[in-house]
Amino acid sequence: MKFRRSERLIDMTDYLKRHPHQLTTLSFFTKRYDAAKSSVSEDIVILKRTFRHQGIGLIETVPGATGGVRFIPMLSSQKANEIGDVLVERINSPKRILTGGFMYLTDLLVHPLTLDFIGRIIASKFALKDINAVMTVATKGVPLAQSVARYLNVPFVIARREAKVTEGATISINYPSYRTNRIEKMLVSKKSLNEGDRVLIVDDFSNGGGTIEGMTMLADEFGATIVGSVVLCELNAQEKKMRPFESIAKITKLDEMNKEIQVEKGSFFNDLSMLLDHVKEEG
Amino acid sequence: MKFRRSERLIDMTDYLKRHPHQLTTLSFFTKRYDAAKSSVSEDIVILKRTFRHQGIGLIETVPGATGGVRFIPMLSSQKANEIGDVLVERINSPKRILTGGFMYLTDLLVHPLTLDFIGRIIASKFALKDINAVMTVATKGVPLAQSVARYLNVPFVIARREAKVTEGATISINYPSYRTNRIEKMLVSKKSLNEGDRVLIVDDFSNGGGTIEGMTMLADEFGATIVGSVVLCELNAQEKKMRPFESIAKITKLDEMNKEIQVEKGSFFNDLSMLLDHVKEEG
Repeated sequence: MKFRRSERLIDMTDYLKRHPHQLTTLSFFTKRYDAAKSSVSEDIVILKRTFRHQGIGLIETVPGATGGVRFIPMLSSQKANEIGDVLVERINSPKRILTGGFMYLTDLLVHPLTLDFIGRIIASKFALKDINAVMTVATKGVPLAQSVARYLNVPFVIARREAKVTEGATISINYPSYRTNRIEKMLVSKKSLNEGDRVLIVDDFSNGGGTIEGMTMLADEFGATIVGSVVLCELNAQEKKMRPFESIAKITKLDEMNKEIQVEKGSFFNDLSMLLDHVKEEG
Repeated sequence: MKFRRSERLIDMTDYLKRHPHQLTTLSFFTKRYDAAKSSVSEDIVILKRTFRHQGIGLIETVPGATGGVRFIPMLSSQKANEIGDVLVERINSPKRILTGGFMYLTDLLVHPLTLDFIGRIIASKFALKDINAVMTVATKGVPLAQSVARYLNVPFVIARREAKVTEGATISINYPSYRTNRIEKMLVSKKSLNEGDRVLIVDDFSNGGGTIEGMTMLADEFGATIVGSVVLCELNAQEKKMRPFESIAKITKLDEMNKEIQVEKGSFFNDLSMLLDHVKEEG
């Protein structure tokens, strides 16, 4: 069957969105649509322009015999700020205060469109950083890590507090928890990471940064590099921090007794120069 | 700015894919593109035809003043079978055999494109069943549940073995584990489900169906209905089953001593009459 341009554009949008960060040859598309190379090249010009204008992402063109196109999901700094405002507004509720300096965030972390938004903004900032793996700690961080990993199209790695038989052999470390002032343990499967991997750490909540420290120590054991660390929600304890990390939302006041809370946009939004509107056009 | 048809089709494909199962009014699109209603209606005819032909899903048109369009991700039974074959081939490896009747499946459950495939086929079969929530048990089932929930655009519910402070109040039950012949405990947050919810259970692995039994009992406590239960991988123990469930892959032989395994497509593929190619065109 012959495809019209309109049909090709719809299908290519679907296909590229399902295969982020993956190189697809032009000949894949010419065969798929029984179309001339020149037609597909024109399609890609239209896709590229529209993806950028509508804040869907970049389409990179890789020239040469082994070349093709690659879709890089990425949004504009304006859209990222809008999402940040919505998230802060949703987090900024005294009903979320739990005993012991914790926050109820589960409703956000089980809601597909919210997870998708958070995944998109985090992945956008690290889209051009050659990330190989997203790392998190069980269990609350997992949905966030999965959402970010999907946009970056890399596997995610789950560190756990205790070994599971279904993981096989593990590597473990002990790390300081700033919140409890105790030494805690964390482990990952030996198959999780490789030497030289470039890792993005993602977690739901940080109170002091101890678990990020732990994950960094684990990555070190593999000879992997931490390229960045982002948490959804940070309880303001900057002074204790050993490793820098970014937060989407920052709790500046948390009064358990009087059920008072203040939340503002976190350090993630201080520098959005990696987002779509700041990336220069190719050639 | 005025949009051309090609630009509208690309952006509508992106928008609809990001908002599955959600009703979007025509006037949303006419405003977004500064376009006439007749133009947008023609766009939708093209989208509808292409989405069906390319196995992306259904576009339902809801007539009237409060009407609009709704994208329902759904693939064809042929594509579902192809994905099933690939998954069975990947699971069918003696290297996956772990001690005690367990299987190493982590590599599949942390890989975005694989999760996406599994989520798509499961969600396709239940796309027209008015599911409100996807339920699973921590921790291995969570990525699968998240992937299915994203395609159905409903929240997912995580049952746990032990309470977490960040969940608030919980409801718990005891259930029989067929594998260990012991009574085990499972709990969920009180906020997880509502009376009348229609629930799809998703899990990574089942050996006898005990955890599905447990999740069904939990749902009963809320007055919610289990519409279906699907596991990625089933160890063949049909005779013990109390509740019926479907499996993507069925292990018909697992010999730990001699490291032998046999895997075939599971009962999920016995009936694919709910998939895209069997759904009739609207009036």
